[in-house]
Amino acid sequence: MKIDSVDLFYLKIPRVKNIGDGSQDALLVRVRAGNFEGWGECEASPLVTIAAWNCPTSHSACQPVSASVLGQSIDTPADIKRIHTNVKANSLDLLQTDHLLSGIDIALWDLLGRKLEEPVYQLLGYPTAHPKTAYASVLFGDSPAETFQKAENAQQQGYRAVKFGWGCYGRQSPAADADQVAAAREGLGKDRCLLIDAGTLWVDDPTEAEKRLSSLETQRVLWLEEPFVSGALNAYRKLSSMTTVKLAGGEGCHDFHQARHMIDHGGIGFIQIDAGRIGGLSIAKQVADYAATRKVKYVNHTFTTQLALSASLQPYAGLSEHDLCEYPVEASALAQSLTPLLIKLDAEGHVHLPETPGLGITPISETIRKYLTETEIVVNGKVIYQTPTI
Amino acid sequence: MKIDSVDLFYLKIPRVKNIGDGSQDALLVRVRAGNFEGWGECEASPLVTIAAWNCPTSHSACQPVSASVLGQSIDTPADIKRIHTNVKANSLDLLQTDHLLSGIDIALWDLLGRKLEEPVYQLLGYPTAHPKTAYASVLFGDSPAETFQKAENAQQQGYRAVKFGWGCYGRQSPAADADQVAAAREGLGKDRCLLIDAGTLWVDDPTEAEKRLSSLETQRVLWLEEPFVSGALNAYRKLSSMTTVKLAGGEGCHDFHQARHMIDHGGIGFIQIDAGRIGGLSIAKQVADYAATRKVKYVNHTFTTQLALSASLQPYAGLSEHDLCEYPVEASALAQSLTPLLIKLDAEGHVHLPETPGLGITPISETIRKYLTETEIVVNGKVIYQTPTI
Repeated sequence: MKIDSVDLFYLKIPRVKNIGDGSQDALLVRVRAGNFEGWGECEASPLVTIAAWNCPTSHSACQPVSASVLGQSIDTPADIKRIHTNVKANSLDLLQTDHLLSGIDIALWDLLGRKLEEPVYQLLGYPTAHPKTAYASVLFGDSPAETFQKAENAQQQGYRAVKFGWGCYGRQSPAADADQVAAAREGLGKDRCLLIDAGTLWVDDPTEAEKRLSSLETQRVLWLEEPFVSGALNAYRKLSSMTTVKLAGGEGCHDFHQARHMIDHGGIGFIQIDAGRIGGLSIAKQVADYAATRKVKYVNHTFTTQLALSASLQPYAGLSEHDLCEYPVEASALAQSLTPLLIKLDAEGHVHLPETPGLGITPISETIRKYLTETEIVVNGKVIYQTPTI
Repeated sequence: MKIDSVDLFYLKIPRVKNIGDGSQDALLVRVRAGNFEGWGECEASPLVTIAAWNCPTSHSACQPVSASVLGQSIDTPADIKRIHTNVKANSLDLLQTDHLLSGIDIALWDLLGRKLEEPVYQLLGYPTAHPKTAYASVLFGDSPAETFQKAENAQQQGYRAVKFGWGCYGRQSPAADADQVAAAREGLGKDRCLLIDAGTLWVDDPTEAEKRLSSLETQRVLWLEEPFVSGALNAYRKLSSMTTVKLAGGEGCHDFHQARHMIDHGGIGFIQIDAGRIGGLSIAKQVADYAATRKVKYVNHTFTTQLALSASLQPYAGLSEHDLCEYPVEASALAQSLTPLLIKLDAEGHVHLPETPGLGITPISETIRKYLTETEIVVNGKVIYQTPTI
């Protein structure tokens, strides 16, 4: 089969707020080849990513991504690998490439799974998909009382693990932060798993993070996530040497090498990969394989739709010891209505991948139409992009 | 002063060829504040970078770059630093940000230099700008005879150093590559400096690079540039341990940390920074400072205009031991006519920065109008970008 078309759908809710909720818009990718189609999602700025698809060529290493994808044959996983190699070479100097390639790669695996009638995790080489313990990913409350309530709600809903992040954390005194973490622990109960996310607040300086370590240890927090930006390896390494709390990070990585460097040089205990940013399932699987050899646990980063969730679980589905999974619980109406709710918590607080071909989850056309954001890009009178119909 | 406007000008020649010549298009940035204006240039895909300026917000860490720039006060270098901090936090998840920020940062330094009536290198903290030995950056000929001719031409034009890159190199047998390098050495003469650029051809695998080392050593090549992509630290380290030829790389880095990792973990001898990609002069200066402490030599990466050349020399102007400089000699008509030719070779093959305020080089409006590429981006009926007038 040849890749006949790649269509990009920019969805957003009517009023996007300036908050840390990444599910307020979405960029969906639909790939068609032969009689099959596959769907993927980029975790990226939709407009900028759309521009990377069909922008005019700047030079031989700065071509639009479309130049290395349209018309390519797609019959086996080796074809996806070849497409990666070509995209990375021909769009080397186009920085946004990895975010766009992610959605295309995911759609290609979905398409191939549908054609070969296998779930994607099997195509990736895993005989079975192990259940994962879902952690609810929620934003800190404005007060400890509100955080307590959120934690209590989450455990009542059956979550065995909860992560609090963003909001006030790190922007107030260490004592006030300690109160927030204590409230989360109290609401969650002593036996469940508590995770804290600092959202890259301290960039590359460990000073403020150090002041929070004792409260994190007291509340038996499993990991402190993203005290720094993904590249700040020295800060990660220094902080990791000072505490029993594991560090987690990596969602900002947009290629295999960056994730590997965090594992090799950052002293992290958990590598968090967003399949919608790092280059798709192909690269995420490569990271999972590497993490497993280095005793670092792989975890997905997912804050949006069930399509993104299914995609993000495939790369480490077969690694039974890598048993945590981020599960979005405060997603927007767009994200919640994009697909049927197929990946649900069971009585043990676990989630399971669909066993149907591909990713096992198809976006609902009516939702796409409802949130579709009309977009047009014209260069020198030529239409570079126009919202496709569905 | 407040930043009143930022205008992005997309220029390109009528027929861009699929070759390794990055000067076929350009993205210029004009910043205005008070009665002053400054100019910068991004080394980036123009359309994709334009989209990053004013795209709709996705969430609090994926805002358009404009949100952190327009209306900001700009009176001292500390203001540029503050703008960086805000852009990096507010546009953290927008991958293309660094390429856009580069041009804005350069324009801000130019504007500040004009206002304070100082060359940019002085604002960056250097008392004097030392001359640099220009190396001519040219593409390999299709045959050794053609490469010989190009090398002979370059030395006759007064260059003391020449770099050959891209084209056939690495895509043919090691013996054929050795013939190319020998032809370059013969045309250049035995005393001049010869550099070879592999253009990331071997991605992250040293095998093919190893086979070329003996011919590079025989021809006394000073550096082998970019055998691998910027992130392939292990491949760089392994290759560097096998040869007396220094490795050079780093043009793909789009933040300080990536450049630092190449220095700390890649075993390179030269760090090559494109000020139009890494985040502008602010970040480039940070890399130059760090390289100097680690005995790694800083070199600019510049293949386009004299505006980009002036910008790229400022961050290491005061470091006398870091004495090489990439000098574009095969630039397109667009790049050559964009500014007056102010940075020229002297009798010793050196180039000197202008001593006039700012970058000392202003683009010619007539050239901008000639190559201006009409572009329009519309989202939900709202014009996000339209080509500005000049």
